Order: sequence, then C-alpha cells, then structure tokens
Amino acid sequence: MQHFDCDYMEGAHPLILEALVRTNMEKSVGYGVDEYCASARRKILAACGLEDGEVHLLVGGTQTNATVIKGLLRPYEGVIAATTGHVALHEAGAIEASGHKVLTIPGCDGKLTAEAIDNYITAFRADEAWDHMVWPGMVYISQPTEYGTLYSLAELEAISAVCRKWEMPLFVDGARLGYALASPATDVTLKDLARLADVFYIGGTKCGAMFGEAVVIPRKGLIPHFFTTIKQQGALLAKGRMLGIQFDVLFTDNLYIDIARHAVELATRLREAFRDKGYEIFAEAPTNQVFVALSAEQEAHLRTLTTFSEWERTADGRLVVRLATSWATRTEDVEELINAL
Amino acid sequence: MQHFDCDYMEGAHPLILEALVRTNMEKSVGYGVDEYCASARRKILAACGLEDGEVHLLVGGTQTNATVIKGLLRPYEGVIAATTGHVALHEAGAIEASGHKVLTIPGCDGKLTAEAIDNYITAFRADEAWDHMVWPGMVYISQPTEYGTLYSLAELEAISAVCRKWEMPLFVDGARLGYALASPATDVTLKDLARLADVFYIGGTKCGAMFGEAVVIPRKGLIPHFFTTIKQQGALLAKGRMLGIQFDVLFTDNLYIDIARHAVELATRLREAFRDKGYEIFAEAPTNQVFVALSAEQEAHLRTLTTFSEWERTADGRLVVRLATSWATRTEDVEELINAL
Amino acid sequence: MQHFDCDYMEGAHPLILEALVRTNMEKSVGYGVDEYCASARRKILAACGLEDGEVHLLVGGTQTNATVIKGLLRPYEGVIAATTGHVALHEAGAIEASGHKVLTIPGCDGKLTAEAIDNYITAFRADEAWDHMVWPGMVYISQPTEYGTLYSLAELEAISAVCRKWEMPLFVDGARLGYALASPATDVTLKDLARLADVFYIGGTKCGAMFGEAVVIPRKGLIPHFFTTIKQQGALLAKGRMLGIQFDVLFTDNLYIDIARHAVELATRLREAFRDKGYEIFAEAPTNQVFVALSAEQEAHLRTLTTFSEWERTADGRLVVRLATSWATRTEDVEELINAL
Amino acid sequence: MQHFDCDYMEGAHPLILEALVRTNMEKSVGYGVDEYCASARRKILAACGLEDGEVHLLVGGTQTNATVIKGLLRPYEGVIAATTGHVALHEAGAIEASGHKVLTIPGCDGKLTAEAIDNYITAFRADEAWDHMVWPGMVYISQPTEYGTLYSLAELEAISAVCRKWEMPLFVDGARLGYALASPATDVTLKDLARLADVFYIGGTKCGAMFGEAVVIPRKGLIPHFFTTIKQQGALLAKGRMLGIQFDVLFTDNLYIDIARHAVELATRLREAFRDKGYEIFAEAPTNQVFVALSAEQEAHLRTLTTFSEWERTADGRLVVRLATSWATRTEDVEELINAL
Repeated sequence: MQHFDCDYMEGAHPLILEALVRTNMEKSVGYGVDEYCASARRKILAACGLEDGEVHLLVGGTQTNATVIKGLLRPYEGVIAATTGHVALHEAGAIEASGHKVLTIPGCDGKLTAEAIDNYITAFRADEAWDHMVWPGMVYISQPTEYGTLYSLAELEAISAVCRKWEMPLFVDGARLGYALASPATDVTLKDLARLADVFYIGGTKCGAMFGEAVVIPRKGLIPHFFTTIKQQGALLAKGRMLGIQFDVLFTDNLYIDIARHAVELATRLREAFRDKGYEIFAEAPTNQVFVALSAEQEAHLRTLTTFSEWERTADGRLVVRLATSWATRTEDVEELINAL
Repeated sequence: MQHFDCDYMEGAHPLILEALVRTNMEKSVGYGVDEYCASARRKILAACGLEDGEVHLLVGGTQTNATVIKGLLRPYEGVIAATTGHVALHEAGAIEASGHKVLTIPGCDGKLTAEAIDNYITAFRADEAWDHMVWPGMVYISQPTEYGTLYSLAELEAISAVCRKWEMPLFVDGARLGYALASPATDVTLKDLARLADVFYIGGTKCGAMFGEAVVIPRKGLIPHFFTTIKQQGALLAKGRMLGIQFDVLFTDNLYIDIARHAVELATRLREAFRDKGYEIFAEAPTNQVFVALSAEQEAHLRTLTTFSEWERTADGRLVVRLATSWATRTEDVEELINAL
Repeated sequence: MQHFDCDYMEGAHPLILEALVRTNMEKSVGYGVDEYCASARRKILAACGLEDGEVHLLVGGTQTNATVIKGLLRPYEGVIAATTGHVALHEAGAIEASGHKVLTIPGCDGKLTAEAIDNYITAFRADEAWDHMVWPGMVYISQPTEYGTLYSLAELEAISAVCRKWEMPLFVDGARLGYALASPATDVTLKDLARLADVFYIGGTKCGAMFGEAVVIPRKGLIPHFFTTIKQQGALLAKGRMLGIQFDVLFTDNLYIDIARHAVELATRLREAFRDKGYEIFAEAPTNQVFVALSAEQEAHLRTLTTFSEWERTADGRLVVRLATSWATRTEDVEELINAL
Repeated sequence: MQHFDCDYMEGAHPLILEALVRTNMEKSVGYGVDEYCASARRKILAACGLEDGEVHLLVGGTQTNATVIKGLLRPYEGVIAATTGHVALHEAGAIEASGHKVLTIPGCDGKLTAEAIDNYITAFRADEAWDHMVWPGMVYISQPTEYGTLYSLAELEAISAVCRKWEMPLFVDGARLGYALASPATDVTLKDLARLADVFYIGGTKCGAMFGEAVVIPRKGLIPHFFTTIKQQGALLAKGRMLGIQFDVLFTDNLYIDIARHAVELATRLREAFRDKGYEIFAEAPTNQVFVALSAEQEAHLRTLTTFSEWERTADGRLVVRLATSWATRTEDVEELINAL
C-alpha cells in the first residue's frame, strides 16, 4: 500500500536534520534573534532580490495567514479571497477569530482574476450602502492555489496592479511555494513575488522543513510591531533558531528549489499516467498535486493501491481525490503505483 | 563567558533527536492522529493515573494558554491570574485578543492563595454592579510560577476546592512542570495535578523537547471541539507526529523527570553558591531558576562571567536577574561560574 | 416629492410619544429593571403564549443580531445565514468582530429552505476535513426577509425541525416582524415563533418605536449571563425604561399589529399599482416593502416623484429599488404617488 | 422616600422632549446624515472652537468607549487607564471583547497623573521584554472621573503633553462632561478639551438627553472609516436624527451647561450638609456626585430617607455610598433630605 495523502507525511529533509543534530548543543537566545535566523534572513532576502526588507519565521500555515492578515487589516476591513481559498474554508475560522470577514469571490480552479477583483471593488464602491459593509482591505491569493494551479506572471502583475490602484496590500500564501517556483510551467520567480506582493511567505512545512514558514515583507515597517502581533497570536517559537537553521539550509545551494523540482517531476509522471489510463484529471495543476475525479470502479481500484485525500464531489457525484508528492517521495513508489493503475 | 539566560537555549534532548532521526522517513498522516501521538497520549495518561482523558499536543506556551483559556471561557467570563502571571504580563495580550479579560489578584512570589481567590469571588458576588463586570470564569496558576516557586499539595488542594465551590475550572500552566515535579521541595505529583486541575499542561519546550506542550484534560469532553479551536488558533502542527515522538520519548523510562532533576540540582548548587558569596536571593524558588538581586558592583562583576535575564528592579533600584539551568546545563559550567563568583 | 426610502423616516408612534411625555419626570433605576420594562415583558410573554421565558430590550437591530449570536455560539462555531442575510452583508462585519464566521447558503428571495440547511450540515459532517472547518452552530433567518418575503408556517416548522435534529438553535431576526404578523399572506403567529425559534426578536425601530428591539428567549437560561453580554456589547441602555415604555405601549390593545397592518395595506396598494402600470415587481413580498426592477425610463420617471432606496442590479443591469411604507405613511401620499406613476 | 441613586433616573429635559414631539412626523433619512444631526454638529464644533473636525453621535457610554478605543488601537496595542476607570471595571469586558488589554495604573480619587503615565511608558520601554508585552497605544481618562473629581487645566495639559511626547492619542470620557464644565471648581473649557484631547465625548445620557453621546474628533480623519466601525459595533442608531435633535437642543442657548450647573449646585449643598452633620465625605468631588463613607448607624438612618448607590467599602469596612443629582433634581427634594439628615 502506497501513501500519497499529502506532502507532509515525512519529517525533515536529511540536510536539515543533519544541521539540527550538528548544532543541537549550541546555546543561543530565544525568539529568533540568533545568528542562524540572521543568516536565513540574509539568504532569503538575497534570493528575493531585496536589499532590505523583513523576514519573520513562523511555525505553520494557518497561523501565518491569521497573523499576517491581522497585522495588515484595520477593524473595519476584510480580506478578499477565492471561495475555495484556504483562509475561507479550512482554517476553522481563524480569520474571523481575529475579527475580520473573509470576502469571497468565486474563482476558477482556485484562482482569482484581476478583473474579478476590480469588479468587486468597483461594485462595492458604487453601492449606496458601502459604509454599512466590510471594506475590502487586502487581497489573499495562494501560489500555487489549493488546486495546485499557478498564477502566471501576467496574471500576478495584473492582480498586483489592481491592488495598488485600490490601495490594498496583496498577500500571497506560499505554503507550497517551492512547488510553484520549481514548476516548468511557471514564469514567476521569487524576485517577481517580492516586487508584486506586499507580503508573501515561503512555505517550509510542505517543502522540506520539519515545520516553518518564512514571511517576507519587502517594504520594511509595513506592519508595525509585527513581532508583538506574532507573539500575541502564539506564533513565536521560543527556540526560534530551529526555524533559522531550517531556512538557512533550505536557502543554501538552491536546496529549496531542487527538492521541489523532484516532487513536481514525480507528480507530472503520475498525472500523465492517470490520464493515459483513462482517469479524468480534475484541475490543470502543474505542481506537486494530482487531482483525479474517480468513477466508482476507479475509486474502488485506487483504494487497493494507495491512500489519498478526499477532496470534493463533482456535480455528478463522483469523488475527486488528491495525491501529493513531496521532496521525500521515492521514484520507485511512483512507478509502482503507475504500473498498478 | 557562560550563558544562563534561560532554559531554552539548546535544541532537543539527544534521545529525542535520535528518535526524530530514526523515524524521519516514515510516513504518517498529519495533525496528530498518528501512532506516535497515540503512544505519547497513552504514556502521559498513565503517568497521570488517568484511565481516560484527553491529551492534546501543541507547539508553544503562549499559544497553549490562549487556546485553553479560549476553550474554557464564555464571552462574559474572564480568567483569574496573579498580577505577575505569564498570561497577565508577557503574552502580548494573547488572552485579550481572544476577547477575555485577565482578572488579576496580587500574589506573593508569583503564587495565588485559595483565600485570596475566595475573597475575590465573594466580593465580586456581593458587588451591587456585578453583572456590569467580567464574571470570573476560571483560575490560572503556574506550577512552578514565573518566580520558580511551588505550590504545595495543601495549597493546590485548597485552590482546587475553592474553584470547585465556585464552579470555576482550574487551569495549571506547566511550561516548566518537569522542574516542579523533580524538585526535592515538592509534594505534588502528576496524579495530584490530574485530580486537582481541570486542565493542565506538561511543558516540553523548556524541559527537554525541541518544542511542544502536552495539554491534559482529565475529564473528557470538558472543552467541546477543542481540536477545531486548536486549529483556529493556529496551534495545530501539520506534522503532528513530531510532537508525538518527542513526548513519547520524554515519557519513556522517566526521562522527563530525570533530566529535570539534573537541572534542579545544578540550580540549587548555584543558588547556594550565590547565597554563600553574599548575594541576595530574591525568591525562594526550589526549581531550575535562580533569582538574585544585585548591587551595582555585583551586577558589574556578574556581567563579566555570564549572560542572564534581567527580571525587574527592587524597590531600592537594584537589578533582579534570573539565571536558569536546564537538562542541557553542564556541571562543569556551573562549577566554573561558582568558582568565579 | 414623496419619500418612501425606508420605514424609519419618522419618530415614534404618537401613543408612544405620549407615554414618554407623560412619564418623563418619574424616577426609576436604570438598565431595564424598572416597572415599565417589567410590564412590557409580561405583555410580550403573554402575546407569545409563554408562561415563562426571557425578554431583553435592546436598542437596534445590528446590535441585537451581534449580541444574540455572540451569546449563542462557542468559539469554534459559526452561524448559518442566507447569502443575502442582513448579518452576512449589511452589518459591517459585526458578527466576525465577535469572532464568528457567517456560513452562507444561497437562498431564494432571501429565504433559506430546511432542505438546503439539512444538505449543508449533511455535507459538512461527511467532509473528511470537517474538524478543520467552522462548525455550524446555529441558524439565522429573518421574518420577513431582507426582500420582504415570508416563511410559511410549514416552512418554519421544517426549518425548526432540521435545527433540532442537528441540535442548532434557530434565531429569527424580526426587525420588521410586525409587518410579517400583520400580513394577510402569513399563517405564522407570535405563538408559533415562540414554539419554533430558540431566540427571536420583535422589532420596534422599524415598527412604531423610536428605537428598540425585544429579544424573546422562550427557554429561560438558554444564554447564561446574557445581561452581562448585552452590557459588554454596549447594548444596554442606561435609561432602560425608555425601552420598557415603548414596548408596553406597542403591546397594549394590539397596537403593534394594527399599525403594521396599515403599512402592509398601503404597500399592497402601491405594489399592485406598480404592476398595473407595467413595472416589474422584483420579489413576491407581501409585507411593507415594494421591490421594483426599473427600466432606465422608469427610473428617470420615478426619480421625479419620490425618493427610494437603491437595492441592487438585475442581471441585465436594471436598477432594483425599494419603497417602504410604515405605520406613519399617509394614505394620501400613497395615492398621490400611484396617480403619478 | 427620596431617590438619589444616579443621574439617569428621569427621561429627557423638557426642551428636548418638546423638540422630539414637534419634529416627530417629519421624514428624514437614517443613520445620522439628516439636517438635525448636521445642525448639532455645527453647534458642537462651534462650542469647541473648532473650524473643522468630526462629530459622531452614539447612543451610550460603554458603547462609545469601546468603539472609540477599537477605532484608535492597532492589534498589538492596549489602552492606559486608571485602575478605577470605567473601561477597566464596569463595562463587562467591552474593551477586551474588541481584543485589547486595559493597562491599568493606580490613580488617586480616580485621576491619573502625567508623571505616572510618563513613568509607566519609560519603564515599559526600558523593559528587556517590552516586545512580549502589550504596547501602550493610547490613554483613557474621564472628566469628571468615576469619583466625580476633576482634572485641572494644568493637569490636563501635562497629560496631553506626555501623550504627544510618546505619540499616544488621549481620549477623554465625558459621560458626565456637563457637570465638569459647569463646576465652579473647574478651569477647563470645551475649547481646552478640543485642543488637548485627540478624541473626547460630550455625554448626553447623564446630562439632560434621553440618551446619546457626542464624540468629537478635532483632527478630521484620525480614525479612518469610523462610521463603519460604529456600525460594526452596533452603535449606529437607525433613526439617527433622534440624536441630532437632542444635541441640537442641548447646544442651543447654553442649555447643556445651564442644566448641569443646577445639578452641581444642588450636589454642593448636599455635600456641605453631609459634612456639617458629621458625615465623612469620601472624595473631593466638586461635580454632581456626593460620596459619603457611612458608619453603620449613619447607613441605617440614610436608608430610611433615600435610595442611593453602594460604591465600595473603606479599609475599615464602612460602606461608601454615592448620591447623584441631575438636571431633573428638585431643590425641594434636596432640602427635604438635608433637613432629615
């Protein structure tokens, strides 16, 4: 039985583990002001083409989304997201818990368009009752999205332009960012993100780390006292250097991208194999996730071969499942599954 | 130069690290429903003398306090704590961020008394305007306290009785619980805590783990849907088994207590040495922390020997500092510092 | 120029004003524990056929919705509402400000169906990731809805049954309840509401009072310490008797229904006149509001005759407007508008 | 039996009631954009010596405090208040409900000093752990205080200077402001408040109105989108003109001050009479409240003469009571009570 449930089934990339072991008995002060965190910050800023800017290291994705959004919004504001956005659906109300509404716009394969955002704001401002409604204060998108799809550079530039036109910060959830950057289908680089987004994060948990998300704020001071807000949200790791070490390793010798590329290649092989065997691919997702809509027969067969995640139901009632690869997925396991399909 | 700043300066206890390395490439599902978490839960419940009960594994202390308190309180309720309580002072408003007031009562060396709590509630209920005020909905104490002091069994029983009399859950912050349990000065066991508290946690971060706090709820279902509240607070680790592995190791062969005893013994030697050399010990704290009130001269001297934490100022303006030992503190380092005092 | 913008353009019904003047110099204690409030409570409970139960008098609708919902929900819960529900759209995020998500289900003419609610819960509980999502903790509907439409007794009974099946309280926003109760199209009485809803309110602001909403909780104690939560939400009027006097008058000699009937009759005449003149009636709303979809020409004409509220745009871009009558609307003004259409 | 419980026992000043009756059947749009609100705003700004500035009309005091404080603070910030401040004690946690901590400083007779505030901030910024603590984001004081005491102009100027030095807005709760402005003991005018405070409000509920508090923001735009925040807090009255009419009357022909002067004069007579009869006056409060510490015998006697509010207990266990006068207090009632003491 194989396991393709998700991209966080194993521990940490061996190079990270090795660094954790090597440095284990060193002493450092807590809360992220140690030398490893400093080194990680420098490397991340360099990779983003930023001379200056803030990098904050948090533990997990929902936590990061809630903390950044709370930091960016004023009480009368909400965050625009796709109806399928992680903050809208699968964070147990974390955004609302900090007092803010998620303003949903229907997306397509998990993506918002600049036009849809622009129309939303235009209609909002034209509404006679606008000041009785939640002011759209920022835009949240994911790269890749929850469906593994990617924004192209042109799409991102358009969204960024709409955000700047309406003076709303753009926040990019990069919980799986490595798989986007490593996809042959992308034309978006870290430097593009640093230019187009106001805040974004580089996911570690799902891309090689044991845990950790690196929030990048290209324009220093955009969120005043963000350290204190991180602490308030319970998102400040006492032994902060554990985060520093992990991101320092991930951003040494291109490791972050290299391991993600491996996952994307295996997912691509898996996706093509499903397609070849007559399965219906559910979303055109050129990253590390494979979405397949299964007939009852296919579902029964696949259950004998591997575990996976149940995603949703199609309009005609078929189960859509997700298989995910990661830095840790073994080529032979993928081949074994392909052969058995 | 020595470093006694705090008890979270190193990584994880070697046995934990070894387990993390050994299991690294195993696959498990996320969010804490794996076998390592199950094993850790069983061992913790057994150590607490509980046949049944809930154990939730969270990442850090502030996060745990905020999540438990949010889970226990209704909107009109607040949490009683000592004025010096961690939730009252050093969590950046995490409790208030979830909508609840911290109702402070002056303590002594960080401790509340049953009598003070009882008087507070009695006065509250006698107040003509009680229903215009925040209802005291629970009691928060720490074992050991922020000053390293300990509640005796009699004190805990009295506090627990007052809480039950007034139908308020008692929550014990055990961020450093190991050092309390291992102190020769204590008569309180884990089983006592499980009997007297409604919720408490067993701190990992400061007691041997890389990170992690194990929340014990002896009476199952006391906080309905607590898993979802944990997720909402951003306190749910994706690779949950990392927590399970750590607590599984800590609760195997008495490791949790053994390593804490080491730290307490070294702190005791350090404390006695300070006293012998004429330094003023600030709080009678029989655990792993040493609080010393320094004259200007002593301060200058100590700064040449070691780093430490600045705690507060005495009424006459002297600096109170804290030195902490941990499972990782080396005996020779303590001896070197003692000799140099 | 006529004015049919809304049903809160005038002050208070003359009988209310008279009572306020008559009692003005009396002295009473504050916060709603005076004799007028007691009398209003007795009359409201009697009208609801309740021997026991709670009645709380608040000031306004958004405030009442936010306070009741906060009182009913636990942190992990959200409130189900129609996409067009007032709490979902036009309360500036008041529900989210208290930490809760509004879980929207598309309605029809502002109404939810029992089946849609049942399907929502069924799908939610079948979702693999349900405990990462906001638990549906209650249902919010309005009688009449934002579109002036009405739930029939059968529809309400079905919704109530679904709520009880899933153990979710049912909350009915009755900001315009008078116009529902007085509609010839309704078969729902106050006694039905008291039997089928867990909390509902009887709107005063839009139905004859200067301000005020009477929250009825048929089952005493359902929301513990609700008085304190009302205070916390800033919804407790110091001179509480002003609310008592108003509801006492409204519930004397059937005034509440009689004045609402007048408004519904005039709205019906207006609606029929629009239809007769070839205007498109937008929603079948047998209460005090008239929704009309206007061609550009019709819009231009209507603007010369009266003010109104702009509601939304039809799919083909026409403006939908709302005209509202109230207890204060004069028959001759309606006739003048009809003649000029 | 007399009644001196509080200053909100009667309805509205007769001139206000008359205006409400006179305008009752006029039609106006809702939410405070009518002509009466505009007129009230103009008169209030003029009385404050402001050419420009915002005036928002809310319903009650707790609501106003919570809304203004929420509008002024960012998530990481708290509000400094006296330990006895209304927001710290008697608002049922309304400030915490919006996510913010009340940072209390012990006062004297309800008053804070500039020095105490300055010391607090100085110590905060010197604290090694400041960024783990709630940032002091504003200062809240009351004029008069909860003990009826007054800040002198020099004291207010000093507090304002400290606030500006540390870049914290100063918010003055003026729920009873009329009685401060009308006190012979004051040297502070409305113009001084408008110059020294960043936000303050002019209390209506306790000073002649049926309800209503007028928030003045001398520097326009200080709180962006404040209207929406007011709506979100449930503090926006639908029939907003009811507030406009009341404040328009209060600020015509000096009514607000004249009626407050009456109350202060009667309170002064009452206070002197208590003192003459050997009662202990509890706080030097030159406004409309009289605080008396009663022996058991005095308490028994007073209870036969009048109702009052129980305030607190002295260190030696005697009851402190409060008697309040208002615009509505009759001279003969005060004289009758004095004679019977």
